[in-house]
Formats: sequence, C-alpha cells, structure tokens
Amino acid sequence: MTDVLHLADKVLRSRLFVGTGKFSYELVPDVLAAAGTQVVTMALRRVDRNNPQENILNYVPRDAILLPNTSGARTGEEAVRIARLARAAGCGNWVKIEVIQDQRYLLPDNYETLLATETLVKEGFVVLPYVSPDLGTARRLADCGAAAVMPLGAPIGSNRGLRTKELIGILIEEIPLPIVVDAGLGRPSEAAQAMEMGAAAVLVNTAIAVADDPVQMAKGFRLAVEAGRLGYLSGPGARREEAHASSPLTGFLGEER
Amino acid sequence: MTDVLHLADKVLRSRLFVGTGKFSYELVPDVLAAAGTQVVTMALRRVDRNNPQENILNYVPRDAILLPNTSGARTGEEAVRIARLARAAGCGNWVKIEVIQDQRYLLPDNYETLLATETLVKEGFVVLPYVSPDLGTARRLADCGAAAVMPLGAPIGSNRGLRTKELIGILIEEIPLPIVVDAGLGRPSEAAQAMEMGAAAVLVNTAIAVADDPVQMAKGFRLAVEAGRLGYLSGPGARREEAHASSPLTGFLGEER
Amino acid sequence: MTDVLHLADKVLRSRLFVGTGKFSYELVPDVLAAAGTQVVTMALRRVDRNNPQENILNYVPRDAILLPNTSGARTGEEAVRIARLARAAGCGNWVKIEVIQDQRYLLPDNYETLLATETLVKEGFVVLPYVSPDLGTARRLADCGAAAVMPLGAPIGSNRGLRTKELIGILIEEIPLPIVVDAGLGRPSEAAQAMEMGAAAVLVNTAIAVADDPVQMAKGFRLAVEAGRLGYLSGPGARREEAHASSPLTGFLGEER
Amino acid sequence: MTDVLHLADKVLRSRLFVGTGKFSYELVPDVLAAAGTQVVTMALRRVDRNNPQENILNYVPRDAILLPNTSGARTGEEAVRIARLARAAGCGNWVKIEVIQDQRYLLPDNYETLLATETLVKEGFVVLPYVSPDLGTARRLADCGAAAVMPLGAPIGSNRGLRTKELIGILIEEIPLPIVVDAGLGRPSEAAQAMEMGAAAVLVNTAIAVADDPVQMAKGFRLAVEAGRLGYLSGPGARREEAHASSPLTGFLGEER
Repeated sequence: MTDVLHLADKVLRSRLFVGTGKFSYELVPDVLAAAGTQVVTMALRRVDRNNPQENILNYVPRDAILLPNTSGARTGEEAVRIARLARAAGCGNWVKIEVIQDQRYLLPDNYETLLATETLVKEGFVVLPYVSPDLGTARRLADCGAAAVMPLGAPIGSNRGLRTKELIGILIEEIPLPIVVDAGLGRPSEAAQAMEMGAAAVLVNTAIAVADDPVQMAKGFRLAVEAGRLGYLSGPGARREEAHASSPLTGFLGEER
Repeated sequence: MTDVLHLADKVLRSRLFVGTGKFSYELVPDVLAAAGTQVVTMALRRVDRNNPQENILNYVPRDAILLPNTSGARTGEEAVRIARLARAAGCGNWVKIEVIQDQRYLLPDNYETLLATETLVKEGFVVLPYVSPDLGTARRLADCGAAAVMPLGAPIGSNRGLRTKELIGILIEEIPLPIVVDAGLGRPSEAAQAMEMGAAAVLVNTAIAVADDPVQMAKGFRLAVEAGRLGYLSGPGARREEAHASSPLTGFLGEER
Repeated sequence: MTDVLHLADKVLRSRLFVGTGKFSYELVPDVLAAAGTQVVTMALRRVDRNNPQENILNYVPRDAILLPNTSGARTGEEAVRIARLARAAGCGNWVKIEVIQDQRYLLPDNYETLLATETLVKEGFVVLPYVSPDLGTARRLADCGAAAVMPLGAPIGSNRGLRTKELIGILIEEIPLPIVVDAGLGRPSEAAQAMEMGAAAVLVNTAIAVADDPVQMAKGFRLAVEAGRLGYLSGPGARREEAHASSPLTGFLGEER
Repeated sequence: MTDVLHLADKVLRSRLFVGTGKFSYELVPDVLAAAGTQVVTMALRRVDRNNPQENILNYVPRDAILLPNTSGARTGEEAVRIARLARAAGCGNWVKIEVIQDQRYLLPDNYETLLATETLVKEGFVVLPYVSPDLGTARRLADCGAAAVMPLGAPIGSNRGLRTKELIGILIEEIPLPIVVDAGLGRPSEAAQAMEMGAAAVLVNTAIAVADDPVQMAKGFRLAVEAGRLGYLSGPGARREEAHASSPLTGFLGEER
C-alpha cells in the first residue's frame, strides 16, 4: 500500500513542493529532479511567453503541476487579477494566494487572502492560500472551498524553522484539509519535524536556493520529507521523563529484572 | 565523490548505527535491512552460543560490524571484563563502553568509562565510549585512543531528542574524533538535526523498537540521517531575523526592486 | 523617573493584569493584593448585583480598573451585547473582547473580534481584544481604535508558556499599541520572558488559580513582571556563540591579556 | 516562615550570587546593593592589599560572604595554590573552584576540579566547584564534601541562557547538595527558570556587567530569582495539551456546564 496525498483532483506521491524564486533558470531542472517534486510554484512575472530564455515554464518538467503564486498582491482583488492572468498565460487553474502588505516580515494578510479565495474558488480555481496560522481563518478557508491551507513556519526566507509549531499543530488537528507548511523552513530536519506532526506536505524555496549546493540540498529535503512522513505513519513511542533501558543488560549485572 | 565515514579501520557508507535491545529476535533482520545499517550494537547477554534461537548473532547479517556494549557494567573493571568476554565469544574487537551507576536516568559514568577505555585500547580493542557530553572527558578519550565519542542526546529510551545540543555542538567543534550521538533520539527529525550539526553518525534503538511499525520507522531514520548529512554538506544559508523575499515578485507590484 | 504604562486614559504602575476565573471568591482579595494588580478581569456572569456573596465585584478593590470580558460570546454581536450589559451593570467602560467558537483549544476568532471592536469603540468603550497573534488583524484593530492588543501565548489554561513567541515579537515591533500577552503563561519565568521581549503587560489567571498556594504564586508573577520589565529597560547584552571571560583572570595564569 | 538557603555554615536570604568581573570598581557597591546579594565572587588578581584603589575588597560590603574563584587555574594543583593564596590574603575560607583548559568555550575541567575539591575540603575550605553538568562528577563532589555543585547553564559570558536544562534538572533531582546555576544566564527570565526547576541559587556576572544599566539589571535579576523561587515553592499547575476554560463563562452562553 502506497502512501499518497490527495490534493484537489490530483494524487501526489511527493509531499515536497518547491518554489523557484531566487534560482537562476539553469539550476531549476536539476533542483526539481533532486527534490522529486510534483508541485512547483513560481511568480507570474517569471512566466514570459515572449522570451523563452526568461520563461520559467521552459525549465519546469511538463508533467509538473504548476502552482503560480500571486506574489506582489497587496489586496485580495490584486491577487484575483494575478490569478486570472496566470490562468490565461497557460499556467493551469491551480493558484497559491499570497497577499502581503507588510514590508519587513512579509506576513500574509489573512483577511484579504480569504476574500481572494472565495472569489477564485467560484471561478473554478484550485486555491491554496498562504496564511498566518490562525484557526478561525483556516476554518473559513475550508468552508469556502480552499484545497489546502498553507500556514507559515516562520517569515519567508528567514530559514528560522518551525517557529509557529503550536498553532500549526492545532490546524492539523482541527482543519479537515491538507495543511502544507510554507515559508521559513531552513533545514531538512525542520521539514521532517513538520511531517512528523502530521503536515500533509511542505513548500521549500529559499533554504534550497541559498545553499552552497542547491541540488544536494534539494535531495536532503526530499529525504527529510519522506523520513518525517514515515516517522508519522509508523506510530512513534511516547516521550518519557526518565530513562528506560534499551537492552536487557542496561541496568545491573546479576540483578533480577 | 561519495561521502563516507572513516571509523577505526573501516570505511562506512551508513551513518546510522542500530541497537538490538527491546526487539524480538525475528524482527531484527528486517529492521537492520530497512535501516541500511552497517554497525549493530547488542548486549553480551543476548549472545548465546549454546542456543541459536536466542543468539542475537544469528539474526544479524554476516557483513555487519558487531558493536557489543558493556551494558550491565557499573565500573570500568566490569566493562573491561565484559569486553573481553564479548571478544572471546566471537563478537570481534569493537566495543561500546557503557558504564552506568545511576538507576533512574541511566547516565553513563564518565570517569569509569575513561578507565575502561584506556585499558581496552591497549588490548587492541576499537573502543567507542558512551558518555555524558563533557569536553574534558572527550579530550582525554581522544588522547588515550578512543575511536569515537558517543555523547547522549537525552537519557536512554526517553525519546526526548537532542536535549544536550549545546554541549554536543562544542564536542563536534573541538574534538578530532567522530562524534556519534547515542541515546535519546526519538524521531527521525532529531537524527537529522544531529547530522546537520556535524555529528558523524547516530545510534538509535528505542525509537525504532517501540514504534508501532519498527521496520518502517527504521527506514524513516535511515532517510533522516542521509537528509541531515546532505543538509550539513550542502552549505545551508544563514538564519535571518527578518523575512527575505523568495521570489522576484514578493514585495509589491509596480515597485522598483 | 518612574516607568509607567499609559493605557487609554489611565496611567498604570502595575503591568500584571489578573483574571478572577477559577478562584473561590474569598481568595480574590489576597491574590489581587499579592499581585499588586490594577486591572482585574472577570466574566459578566460572576457580576451578580442581587447576591452580594456571589458578586465578584464585592471582592475586588474599589480602585481597581474593572475589565469585564465577553467570555461566552461566539460572535461579535454576542460580544457587543455582553459588553453593553457589563457597562449597564456598573463595570465601567473597559471591556476585553473574547469571542470563541472553538471548543477544544478555546482560540479566539479574530474576525468576529474585529467586528465587535469596531462597534464598541464607536460606543465609547475602551476595548482590549483577545486575539490569535496575527499581524493583519492587529493592524486593523489599531486602525479602528482598540486600546491594546492581547495575543495569546498558548491556549487558555494550558500553562504552556510563550509558544507564539515568534509572532508576538513581530506584533511588538510593528504595532503602535501596547501588546498585552494573555493566556497560556504558566510560570513566572514565562511572564518575565514576555516582558523582556517588550510586551507592555501580561494577563495571568489559571497559573495563579491552580497553584497550590495562589497568593504566593501571585507574588511570584508580580516580581517576575517587574524583573522582566527591568531586563527590557536596562539594555541587555548580546548573546554570543562562544564564551567570553567574565573576570580578568579567567583564561590563564601568567598570560598577557 | 521564611525561605532560606543553608549553605555550609551560613543561612542565606538571598539566592543571587554576583560576580565582580568586567565591572569598573566604582560600580560594584551599587550593583551589589541592587542585587541584594550576600555572596560575592572575585578573581584573586583583583585582591590587591597594597593598592586600595585597585582592591576589589574595598568595594564589597563588610558583611558579604567572599567567594574568591580560582580563575586562571589550568590544573587542580594550580587551583589549590590560588585558593590558599586567597585565604592568606584574608578572603576567608570559601572558594569557588574554576579549572579551565579550554580557550574557546572556557568549559571547566571536571576531573581536575574534583582533585582540587578533595584537597581543599581536607584543608578546611568551603568548596563550591564550577562544573560541566555531569551526574557522576556531581556525585563524587558530594561524596568528598563539596558544599554545593555549580553547573554551567551555557559557556561563561555567552548570555545564552539555560542550555543545559536537561542535565541540570537531573542534578537537582539526584544530588543531595544545593545546585547553583553558574555561567551563561543572560536575562532575568532565565534566572527565574532555573529557580523554578529547583536550583538553590544562581550566580550572575556578565549579564549584569554588560547591560547598559548594570544597577537596574542587577535589580531585575534579584526580582527574577525571588519570582522563580516563589514559582517553585507555590506548587505550579500541570502543563496541559489542550485549553482549559479559566472563567465560568469561557465556553458558550446558554450551555450547561
């Protein structure tokens, strides 16, 4: 029996989504291959039909699911506009909503994100909203038909890891949608940790892009996501306050046990 | 170019050592295969030449490096005695020194461990001492010829993870021997974290043994160790206080950048 | 020069707000005195004008600022109704908005909280909204005239501490209102940590109420809040990766330095 | 009933020990007063009988307990020599053993520290050894008559906090001596945390010395130590996985409860 992720109308083997920002175009194919990813995000501005050299789509495998993001949008309305442009440009009908008003921490605006999601779901998009981890927002997103919820682990590009663990754990438990941890993961171990908590997938961009060897780091994240998923599925033991002998002899020679 | 671990006279591809305590004998072959391990620890009491059914060696692949531990020893002298018995029983000349006086947390006694190491190195053993993470002890172990240093991440069997991270990081930086994190790792992500810090390897027993599906968990740890090693080798980016746009469009439409 | 907190039209010396839930009435005066608190929260249901024995107001000092909460409200509208009843019952015009739809983690609903805040500010209330820590919500609350923002450190009554530290730090930096950490603080050290980060105040209820000695614990929180505030004000030194000799002799005898 | 600390032949009200390294002499009296400390550490080099201006003892209150440290010692023998010099110089018979061989992290050498302790206890000193947190070492120190055990929270002067929490907690539980957390505490909240765990006292130097306002920071640490001690004594409640309503109304209007 294989473990797969059902997301909208797709069945995915890979639980590692990869972003293409900050990469030079030439690196993209090798990184995506090493990551084994099936879902690839990109900013619309990098989709340039008139210039094949500068068109990110020419560097993404044909069978990948494209997940254009609405980066640059400050309002839900702007996000809706970008999503429509992306579909018109041939990027398909999946979209990651990203509405950001904050210059310093680039935190998403949950309210405007919800507005865009409502509109785009009605227009037939498969909508994956990027949000600040908040239960009420996540519930409304589920109610209005989002395909997943994508809370941040830490600010975009910060490599700070799973700093919002407490709130993400609650989303995983309470929301009947796949929770995809997006932003902030800086090390493979942090991706594994998210998966062990029960996240459905993670999205990684900066941590791979800024590594000295992005291809090797992409492979590291791929293995970490699989490792963490197996850790989740195989029913880990409880954490204990005290020690517990792991061998029949730890303890003392000659004592009964 | 392949990344390998030089340990004493061996060249290892796998950086995941596995302990066989708490497993039923039948499970051992599948767990070891799933872990891809080349170094296997066992308590001497489970090495029973007269009873093949109860002899752990009959469940371990022939090409594995045996690493009998001295569990049950309360003094260096007892550890030396157990090590000699293990060699006489055909377990080879590698030994993990484990001297424990504490019943509750099963913490190793660094001083007695050092005494046993000195003696056994002179007798031609390849000695891997299990220690409480202490720089002075680790330096003396290196000086007297230990093959590696094995500090605990947390008490044996506690599944508490890398709680001694601060001190282990110092050992990795200061000691010119492989540092193998032993005890306490409870989740794959924690093994990955140790590897990302620069540990040479990790030893896992309880976390696999007590999982609902030990074979699957063994595979999870194998992937996590590889993931963490890749994370270490591929030169991860710095952690930042603030956000950093990961795509050319994160930020604002129409603004210069 | 004294450090005070300006909150709406009040000048407060104490930065420890205390909640009266879970206490027997008789304990309240001693706990409030030990906490040195000037702002006291209570649920409206405990304000019973017809029964002095069961009326929480008879146990609260006359000079305390009453901060009735809207607990029990599931919508903004219900919160507005409770706030009006509280004012009519003589509790004054301060109100803590608490709108909760989630039974398990009792997380506040940011959206309904914002609606109630908008309405009540217009009606002349001093509004302190309890929220899930989200920058966009906090900004809107500031824009519509809230007197402070009260993000949770962890779920109500969980004693789990400052689990949302990452997001609260961002609120402190970005929002031009007092940030009062509310819910989840379980130990004095956690209150001190919040203050060191720059929180304007903290609100504590359960941690004091469930202690074996609530009066002593109240005093502990009072001192911790003062300690953390002093830590914030006195300009702490940077954290360092390595050691740094703290005395002219740490280092080595006979060496120049 | 007053809570006091019995240490050797003294009964102490204050659980905050303060080090005088890195301070200009003039600051010392105000810092010690603000800290309310009764035990003051200093390096022997600063005890200069021939030069009152440069003699730290002239800046320390007459009723303080002097705790000269052996900083500069690389071996137990050197520590013993410094301790004797300190006693001869009129510093009394208390001594903090500090034996350091490591230049980078300034970690104490447990083995040499134990040797010095054995010798000095026999010579009638009250010995407080500074150690890397290790249970076996602590037990031997207790057996040979040390007055307390002083494990590090993090490297000296690093302001990194209680990074060795796991091991210090075990010392507190298992060792029948006062455990005094020494080195690394950088913020008042971290001192409070150590006290809440059951530490008998803490020693702070750098965190106060390098603050912009050392006197105010000293007061912050004093309050934090008292706060943490009260937190320990007053029987804090359990940490919970889920929320727990703190008021009779949190939950829902109109429902039975």
